[in-house]
Amino acid sequence: MYVEGLGRHTCPSFHLLLLLISLQVGLHSVEGVWPLPQSYVPSPEQYRLNPQAFYFGYGKQSAAQSGCTVLDSAFKRYFSLVFPDFSSGYGALRFSVDKPFIVEVTVDHNDCEGYPNEDSSERYSLTVSAGLASLNADTVWGALRGLETFSQLVYQDDFGSYFVNKTDIEDFPRFQFRAILLDTSRHYLPVQTILKTLDAMAYNKFNVFHWHIVDDPSFPYQSRTFPDLSSKGAFHPMTHIYTQSDVRRVISHGRLRGIRILPEFDSPGHTKSWGKGQPDLLTPCYKGSAPSGAYGPVNPTLLSTYEFMAGLFKEVSSVFPDSYIHLGGDEVDFTCWRSNPDVRAFMQKMGFGADFTKLEAFYMENIVNITSSLNKTSIVWQDVFDYHERIPKDTVLHIWKGVPAKYQDELSRITKAGMRVLLAAPWYINHISYGQDWRSYYTVQPQNFPGTEEQKKLVIGGEVCMWGEYVDATNLNPRLWPRASAAAERLWSDEKQTFDVNKAFPRLKDFRCKLLRRGIQAEPLFVGHCKHEYQGI
Amino acid sequence: MYVEGLGRHTCPSFHLLLLLISLQVGLHSVEGVWPLPQSYVPSPEQYRLNPQAFYFGYGKQSAAQSGCTVLDSAFKRYFSLVFPDFSSGYGALRFSVDKPFIVEVTVDHNDCEGYPNEDSSERYSLTVSAGLASLNADTVWGALRGLETFSQLVYQDDFGSYFVNKTDIEDFPRFQFRAILLDTSRHYLPVQTILKTLDAMAYNKFNVFHWHIVDDPSFPYQSRTFPDLSSKGAFHPMTHIYTQSDVRRVISHGRLRGIRILPEFDSPGHTKSWGKGQPDLLTPCYKGSAPSGAYGPVNPTLLSTYEFMAGLFKEVSSVFPDSYIHLGGDEVDFTCWRSNPDVRAFMQKMGFGADFTKLEAFYMENIVNITSSLNKTSIVWQDVFDYHERIPKDTVLHIWKGVPAKYQDELSRITKAGMRVLLAAPWYINHISYGQDWRSYYTVQPQNFPGTEEQKKLVIGGEVCMWGEYVDATNLNPRLWPRASAAAERLWSDEKQTFDVNKAFPRLKDFRCKLLRRGIQAEPLFVGHCKHEYQGI
Repeated sequence: MYVEGLGRHTCPSFHLLLLLISLQVGLHSVEGVWPLPQSYVPSPEQYRLNPQAFYFGYGKQSAAQSGCTVLDSAFKRYFSLVFPDFSSGYGALRFSVDKPFIVEVTVDHNDCEGYPNEDSSERYSLTVSAGLASLNADTVWGALRGLETFSQLVYQDDFGSYFVNKTDIEDFPRFQFRAILLDTSRHYLPVQTILKTLDAMAYNKFNVFHWHIVDDPSFPYQSRTFPDLSSKGAFHPMTHIYTQSDVRRVISHGRLRGIRILPEFDSPGHTKSWGKGQPDLLTPCYKGSAPSGAYGPVNPTLLSTYEFMAGLFKEVSSVFPDSYIHLGGDEVDFTCWRSNPDVRAFMQKMGFGADFTKLEAFYMENIVNITSSLNKTSIVWQDVFDYHERIPKDTVLHIWKGVPAKYQDELSRITKAGMRVLLAAPWYINHISYGQDWRSYYTVQPQNFPGTEEQKKLVIGGEVCMWGEYVDATNLNPRLWPRASAAAERLWSDEKQTFDVNKAFPRLKDFRCKLLRRGIQAEPLFVGHCKHEYQGI
Repeated sequence: MYVEGLGRHTCPSFHLLLLLISLQVGLHSVEGVWPLPQSYVPSPEQYRLNPQAFYFGYGKQSAAQSGCTVLDSAFKRYFSLVFPDFSSGYGALRFSVDKPFIVEVTVDHNDCEGYPNEDSSERYSLTVSAGLASLNADTVWGALRGLETFSQLVYQDDFGSYFVNKTDIEDFPRFQFRAILLDTSRHYLPVQTILKTLDAMAYNKFNVFHWHIVDDPSFPYQSRTFPDLSSKGAFHPMTHIYTQSDVRRVISHGRLRGIRILPEFDSPGHTKSWGKGQPDLLTPCYKGSAPSGAYGPVNPTLLSTYEFMAGLFKEVSSVFPDSYIHLGGDEVDFTCWRSNPDVRAFMQKMGFGADFTKLEAFYMENIVNITSSLNKTSIVWQDVFDYHERIPKDTVLHIWKGVPAKYQDELSRITKAGMRVLLAAPWYINHISYGQDWRSYYTVQPQNFPGTEEQKKLVIGGEVCMWGEYVDATNLNPRLWPRASAAAERLWSDEKQTFDVNKAFPRLKDFRCKLLRRGIQAEPLFVGHCKHEYQGI
């Protein structure tokens, strides 16, 4: 905490100074949590925290107790986040005259060794009083959200002392699915970069990492079943791949932060790199009566294609524990299929005529059936809905087209058909522009479309997409944060309490300084400064 | 060096592989220098370099010899840049069977302890042959440019060996003034961030750092004469300032890289932060017949203003050794002046009527006279020319308005009046947009305006501006590099040899990977990869 502007004017007396600090501190703590909790009742009553006499612990009634991997590691992590100046040297146990302050966590279910999933409750309540913060939640995932909130309530005065105010919070997410997409095919992202993103996602209460792991330019996923896919399809077969152990690290890092890892293996388009390691997978394009040497989308006419896909998705389903899988299905270019005489013959045989959307539908149906038989729920890009409706009713449609306004029509159409949707279109934050574009991300209203209340409920959440054409580890973090934080609040918080973008500005500015303080290279919103600037370079 | 795509196809025989590598290496080295030298004759003849038997040294005829601070430190620096894998442990002196390779530097003038200036020659010639690279230059500043070029000629094969090809280069800059502006007022930039920018500037052969050090939001320059300016006008009086020793470090770091440090103290507008530490400097604005409490531009009617400015510029002139100083003079808002009865009375007394541009001209004339009397040449923003012409003929006009095309008119007008100009307008790279905007920076033609040959010669160079509204240390580097590199080539290289932006693309892509390898957080131009990705996070 600092008092902006002090020192710029003639110096007030010391007592007045202290009063000013207290007042500003009081104000500050009122606005101190991002995204805003559903119910947040702060008070000016302040408690000084002594890192030497501060503990996280389990409530007596808690279903999870010491030994719970998710909470034990969260306690350790959040101690450093609550007391960023507290070096381990200074941290040796000493006699303290202060009464201890305890954060006591009680959860109803012991899901300490499990994974967060679509139904996981993230609800929590947090009551901060003298010497005690009581954090109650249904699940450990809810407890994680509450710990994040608690860590944001703690602030420092100019003398370095830590404080927290008496506070009552009841909180839960507006949407169940709050995702960030990273694209590791157009540029390879080192594993450390992904882990750091998961850290920052947890600070923003995002709960799904959509890993667009492969695409046309490269295939960095090292498959156990088909090792040639990465050895021939990655940018480099050793340095630009994700090994099985890398993938496990990402999944584990996410689990400990309550973040689901949703892999996408996009087909039949966006698969150029797949063809390098899997002969006969892609459709040979023709020029006149002879193959041109170029390849198009996956060849949907061969049995071998479906055998390969079944093998790949069997592996992927066992590697990634989440019950959802993303199958892509976007932007299929029919030119190559149309040029190929075997494909045309297949079309005739199947009675598709000249309608290649039917061929695409036929392909996607087969792929969705493969993953269904593996007990996975599919997410597909909206194109799949646009082409046909014979997809299982539990499939989630992912809306990516139509900015500024046409995505509302698609929301209407898809939810009218009773399908669940996920909104990404207005949050393509790889599309940078000059100025405060976070404001437009903040003012998106995902349920603002023509439809019934039942339809509105089919919007399961939203996703911030950072496509990789112009993004790699050099610029990912400042492009992502705090721009994605705007969507984080939209997806978590109550719409009525967060409709005013100007009221959000000082809170987001402050939250961005918190991210910096935690080592996230978050860029500035506008002119100004943070007490602790980025010192990375 | 790597061979993109190898490993994606069936494996060729080992000899074929080596042949392929050599071919690609050969191709690579042909394109290996950014910005492109004026005359560049490469050859396929390759020399293997052994770091154990590689030396920089002075030619017998060289005016500078061992002990020359600029070149001694450059030799040390460039050894690491030439051999990035060569750790100091491995670097212990050993017996080597290889014949040594020597880079022998000969300069005509010993300016080892001086500063680069407007007239400094940067011309050099570089001849690489077996065992010897001869680098000749008029000045040590030219030798620095030649060392940079040499370092870019060296490449590694897939086995880690270093090579350089036989090469002949004659090189000199097209423009004398090739600048980058950083703004340390809208956000504070840590000194390390500035030094890192100077490093990257040297890799791009930029030679002027335009330090827009103060402005409305903050005054981080710690003045010896007026310490209140920063203690009251900086974002924070201790952590967000540049001490005298910080400034000396920046100047010294620049000098050793042949980079001039050009400070800007912009007035009479853009001075809000000055008013906090200097009472009565700014004009009190009026609402009706009473002061409103707000302040406007510097008050041009008071003698005390000019006494203060004389004191400040006397200090600045002695702190910054460069013979140029930037006085700003842009965007003066007349509203406040107009509201103030004392200013209006002064206007009447001076016979300016209601024309406030005359008042601004009067003010700027006084400031230019102050710096002239301190033997400094002034640079001012174009606004000053637009308002009056009673400025010394050696003043440089800095063009910042009128994109996409109107800056050509201004170039015509100002050079027709016989004044020298500096072009910044098309290189405001703080204005980000989606996609490859470096292409528009590359295709700028600074001398493409209606005018005589004499007029064209009055364009002394150009400047890339990174204004700080949305930029601080978190995002500066990826926004600056390699987008500024496009302007670097336009300002250094021959227009005829570099008119094709598509030919530049693979070269710039390669240069960006070199910047990454040197620890500069340069963002990608498009889909792809570098052998050594950024591992900063």
